[in-house]
Amino acid sequence: MVNVGIVGCGYWGPKHVRNFHELAGANVTMVCDLEQDRLEQVRRQYPYVVTTSDFGDLLKGDVDAVVVATPVCSHYRLTREALLHDKHVLVEKPITASSREAVELIELAEKRNRVLMVGHTYEYHPAVDFLRQLVKSGELGEIYYIDAARLNLGLFRPDVNVLWDLAPHDICIVVALLDGEPITVSARGGGHIDAAVYDVAYLELRFPGEALAHLHVSWLDPCKVRQITIVGSKKMVIYDDVSEAEKIRIYDKGVAIPANADKFAAWPPSYRHGDVTIPFISNAEPLKLECSHFLQCITEGKRPRSDGWAGLKIVNILEAANRSLLNGGRREKLPSTMAIAEGCSAKLIQGKR
Amino acid sequence: MVNVGIVGCGYWGPKHVRNFHELAGANVTMVCDLEQDRLEQVRRQYPYVVTTSDFGDLLKGDVDAVVVATPVCSHYRLTREALLHDKHVLVEKPITASSREAVELIELAEKRNRVLMVGHTYEYHPAVDFLRQLVKSGELGEIYYIDAARLNLGLFRPDVNVLWDLAPHDICIVVALLDGEPITVSARGGGHIDAAVYDVAYLELRFPGEALAHLHVSWLDPCKVRQITIVGSKKMVIYDDVSEAEKIRIYDKGVAIPANADKFAAWPPSYRHGDVTIPFISNAEPLKLECSHFLQCITEGKRPRSDGWAGLKIVNILEAANRSLLNGGRREKLPSTMAIAEGCSAKLIQGKR
Amino acid sequence: MVNVGIVGCGYWGPKHVRNFHELAGANVTMVCDLEQDRLEQVRRQYPYVVTTSDFGDLLKGDVDAVVVATPVCSHYRLTREALLHDKHVLVEKPITASSREAVELIELAEKRNRVLMVGHTYEYHPAVDFLRQLVKSGELGEIYYIDAARLNLGLFRPDVNVLWDLAPHDICIVVALLDGEPITVSARGGGHIDAAVYDVAYLELRFPGEALAHLHVSWLDPCKVRQITIVGSKKMVIYDDVSEAEKIRIYDKGVAIPANADKFAAWPPSYRHGDVTIPFISNAEPLKLECSHFLQCITEGKRPRSDGWAGLKIVNILEAANRSLLNGGRREKLPSTMAIAEGCSAKLIQGKR
Amino acid sequence: MVNVGIVGCGYWGPKHVRNFHELAGANVTMVCDLEQDRLEQVRRQYPYVVTTSDFGDLLKGDVDAVVVATPVCSHYRLTREALLHDKHVLVEKPITASSREAVELIELAEKRNRVLMVGHTYEYHPAVDFLRQLVKSGELGEIYYIDAARLNLGLFRPDVNVLWDLAPHDICIVVALLDGEPITVSARGGGHIDAAVYDVAYLELRFPGEALAHLHVSWLDPCKVRQITIVGSKKMVIYDDVSEAEKIRIYDKGVAIPANADKFAAWPPSYRHGDVTIPFISNAEPLKLECSHFLQCITEGKRPRSDGWAGLKIVNILEAANRSLLNGGRREKLPSTMAIAEGCSAKLIQGKR
Repeated sequence: MVNVGIVGCGYWGPKHVRNFHELAGANVTMVCDLEQDRLEQVRRQYPYVVTTSDFGDLLKGDVDAVVVATPVCSHYRLTREALLHDKHVLVEKPITASSREAVELIELAEKRNRVLMVGHTYEYHPAVDFLRQLVKSGELGEIYYIDAARLNLGLFRPDVNVLWDLAPHDICIVVALLDGEPITVSARGGGHIDAAVYDVAYLELRFPGEALAHLHVSWLDPCKVRQITIVGSKKMVIYDDVSEAEKIRIYDKGVAIPANADKFAAWPPSYRHGDVTIPFISNAEPLKLECSHFLQCITEGKRPRSDGWAGLKIVNILEAANRSLLNGGRREKLPSTMAIAEGCSAKLIQGKR
Repeated sequence: MVNVGIVGCGYWGPKHVRNFHELAGANVTMVCDLEQDRLEQVRRQYPYVVTTSDFGDLLKGDVDAVVVATPVCSHYRLTREALLHDKHVLVEKPITASSREAVELIELAEKRNRVLMVGHTYEYHPAVDFLRQLVKSGELGEIYYIDAARLNLGLFRPDVNVLWDLAPHDICIVVALLDGEPITVSARGGGHIDAAVYDVAYLELRFPGEALAHLHVSWLDPCKVRQITIVGSKKMVIYDDVSEAEKIRIYDKGVAIPANADKFAAWPPSYRHGDVTIPFISNAEPLKLECSHFLQCITEGKRPRSDGWAGLKIVNILEAANRSLLNGGRREKLPSTMAIAEGCSAKLIQGKR
Repeated sequence: MVNVGIVGCGYWGPKHVRNFHELAGANVTMVCDLEQDRLEQVRRQYPYVVTTSDFGDLLKGDVDAVVVATPVCSHYRLTREALLHDKHVLVEKPITASSREAVELIELAEKRNRVLMVGHTYEYHPAVDFLRQLVKSGELGEIYYIDAARLNLGLFRPDVNVLWDLAPHDICIVVALLDGEPITVSARGGGHIDAAVYDVAYLELRFPGEALAHLHVSWLDPCKVRQITIVGSKKMVIYDDVSEAEKIRIYDKGVAIPANADKFAAWPPSYRHGDVTIPFISNAEPLKLECSHFLQCITEGKRPRSDGWAGLKIVNILEAANRSLLNGGRREKLPSTMAIAEGCSAKLIQGKR
Repeated sequence: MVNVGIVGCGYWGPKHVRNFHELAGANVTMVCDLEQDRLEQVRRQYPYVVTTSDFGDLLKGDVDAVVVATPVCSHYRLTREALLHDKHVLVEKPITASSREAVELIELAEKRNRVLMVGHTYEYHPAVDFLRQLVKSGELGEIYYIDAARLNLGLFRPDVNVLWDLAPHDICIVVALLDGEPITVSARGGGHIDAAVYDVAYLELRFPGEALAHLHVSWLDPCKVRQITIVGSKKMVIYDDVSEAEKIRIYDKGVAIPANADKFAAWPPSYRHGDVTIPFISNAEPLKLECSHFLQCITEGKRPRSDGWAGLKIVNILEAANRSLLNGGRREKLPSTMAIAEGCSAKLIQGKR
């Protein structure tokens, strides 16, 4: 039985409380937040949970594992403290506000031999799992490009722009599907409500071998949209995460080019139109699967699928996107996460001397 | 009664034949195409129309006005010849393959005192008309940004990339709604079927006063999408041109910021959720309205809404987008159409000496 | 080459003109209607077609086959005259306003050795063809019930109620899918615009072996609906004829009852949820396929799929539905079409003596 | 503070537990069910709630009000016992399995001066509230007819057929909108999984003044449908309860008949097509509003909107529908609820002597 303490009771925190509460292998023992009315809410729903506004109390309490569900700017500090107190940590995405901090947490978790997991919920989403296997199986053929849109009216967040808030989800998915890191990143957008905070952004990721991903994230859209189109040389897929019952549609259609055609004969190409299949996808709650995976990693001493390195990968891309935003949308080359880790570690090691 | 000759019987040509045939003020007298089976098709449907594969015949025939519905590369040459034979011309979009050629046609039409109109069909679309008036009325407030997607599987075209094929529609609409020319243009994309021809592209237009437009065009998508989202400070609109009965949805929703709030109090903002209105929009065929406008301009000696200058505006943007594609998606400054016209004219004048 | 004359240029007539005009094996030689402006319209579009307001002219003209597309009340008289002049006849649905008249036309066509075909368009619809084969293949299991809705605002018709106007389509489909005649028919409804004319009706058909079909037809609905749900013991299907690209959806779901379960163990039943498949369906125009079938029957001397007997079957059901409407929705036993034919023929034979 | 005890923890029970738990004015003190694992589930989620499998315990416990959420067959017995112990009662719909029992409970509650409320959730649904006011305002004109469909795969229930399970919802809504009781009721359907239990049913209610309501309920449909169409002489409405954000659509369309037209001139009628409006509807949980109303009635001594009489009205209609099912779908005259009450009371009074 793992005793779980949760810090941060805004949007994600209460969902973690509920999920760990419902999982057989865990007890939610403590909850920490700075606002009393949020703690009151927790006590009302779960009278036996100890609440506090002092994170130190939580670290000293009956807690094996800590869930960090606070604003991004505090992820690094709280996660670091928890690891230093030998707690396992599940930290919400993005892992930190900088890749340097991410590397430090990775090293620390390794040294302390603790589980460090990032809340990349979509990693554990049955629909994304299905898509990953579909791509891997080759049924879609070569992946030409992926187009993603994650739009809604709000929720504006005070600490990060829309890119850091919403894009981690889609970057996670894209990176999982294309199974690699992009070479270049570019980003554009605008801040319409507060000029200092991007509330609409477009992100381009170019992968080795010409695969292209384009992301649209927005806090300023009339409709809730969470849609990803995957265009392969053999089949195409639309993944609509807003749909309750029909999340994935596989289109058996494409451009048909005769194998031995010269350019002239092949033009205009013919089009292949076949069936559409909507596979049955389990409606298990992704966050529950994530929490369950966290518990399993703790009890079995396993490395989580979304470990610190996975978290670093996303932060690395977000940092490059930020640079591109500052440079008028220029394509930024992406340093490999290995290079970052080495660069940072060297510095860290030097700093520690 | 205006006698109309149509050159080019691929995708748009037969639609022009049908529409002018059905309009009271016009006769379709001649049709020209290089392929005999296309002409055969026309004769079968309209036995009294004279067909020819020689454009010279058409110019010598009983024709007051010429519709140029051929591939883009021949627009300039055919339009020029028609004007030189004192025909009125309706040329499909984009007007030409370069702004230099567009300026030359504008000058020629002026000199010959002929109507030169570009087939910007969406200029005449009842839904776009409605949107234009809606924006003008101020009901949407300040326009923050416009996001457009025009996607389908095909039709690949041999002479132009997807940007020149599909983007003119959305550029037209965006320019009409924001009533001005963009300052910068940038474009990205990929050629997945033929590396030399972009089949997916993303286009960013930045307008004076921070308004932003983003266009996504693709020949490689499983679904037919023609959707434009307009986000204003007061209301938001989705225009779905694929929908038969509900093309426009006006969302009375937005971010509510108290007038005299300091930053702190205003954060997080609250959200306003009101009714959605789906206005009744006439289902008159846009191409019929366009053809009718062409006839009216001829008989009344009027300048068309989508005249040569409007055509030049679009080509100017497409050229900048092409430059950006070559420059890795860099933001390209857009020369004003006036500047182009002056530059070109000077050269033309010199060339004529 | 079959020369076709068409009588009636309201809703269906012009569609017949266009389709026969486009088919290789036919010439539209004559068109007849009482209203001059409709004829004018035809002449404008097809200048070589001879038009007349006198059906006698058409019968005397250069016509091998006649299409009767007039109001129902005149179907019998016009079809009869055409057969008496040795024309082949394609008559719009329903074949006649009474089963007695239908039998007479069947006999006459047989005697004259002419093709008599009824315009049951859905018989020739690729989607219905697909469904018929799907049901026949046993993939859906035993058919439990079929629910159909055909709704729209209008078009009100002066000569028939909504049942006679819209239900023939769905009765055709249901009869085709269940491959048999219903045993009982009952109908309810209301006349809201004109109390004497039903504008909303519900129809129940009970087939041998417990299969049930329920039809809802309405001229008073805000949306255009043409939907049929087929519930089988193994799979379920929704056929949405309004959808452009996704007419048929096959749901691999149902109630799972263990084979050897006693009542107690089987209750509550478990539910099976599998994939949804949207098969690719040809978008060939059903009316064109119908017209083409008519031509083929004429040239090859074949009996049409929707012959007079098929027409009689529908009229028989409509008559029973009418009786039920008058009897407060009572279930009316349906005489078999054979019994009707024999009864009528006897009378006819007696009448002829 | 009202102490609430809940009996029955199947589908609705746990929802009642959660809602009363969350409401400020109530404590959930006891929960009763026959199955231990359901009680275990409750204890795990709400450790302070006392659980029991003996309803007698609950009646003796610290409980002011009882929620009866058991199968229909036990509603009467449990509600009666609770009232006899001077508890207020909220009983799930339908109130009882017979109108005789319903009358007895009404009388008992009156005599004991306790609140007796039926769980007609839709009475408290914000969308239904909106519709009721819309109809009352006259904006829709005269109501011609209402068509309702409530379909899904399952959940089959062992104690009642689909009519008693699903139709109460729609009958409630229809009766609320048309503000009156139907004159006749007829019903048809079939039992496909278990021949003894109707799993598909169609219900016709005819109201005074020609208004017509038609209900379709099914446990055997591939899709979850909860849709009601209201056709008025001025406007039409579709209420789609499955839609998250757009539950109600008001269509400003209809048949336009000139005021002083004679029959001939008015035929065919013209059609009016105007805007569609999707009003903003609160997404407050109907069950929470219902529970809150129950608490308010207890503390303020008010009569609930869905009191015993409202419950009787529904049972009266369901009984007539059952009779019609047995009589081959015959239209059954509906006794007025007043007549039933008087008849029953007399008998009860006699029985008591």
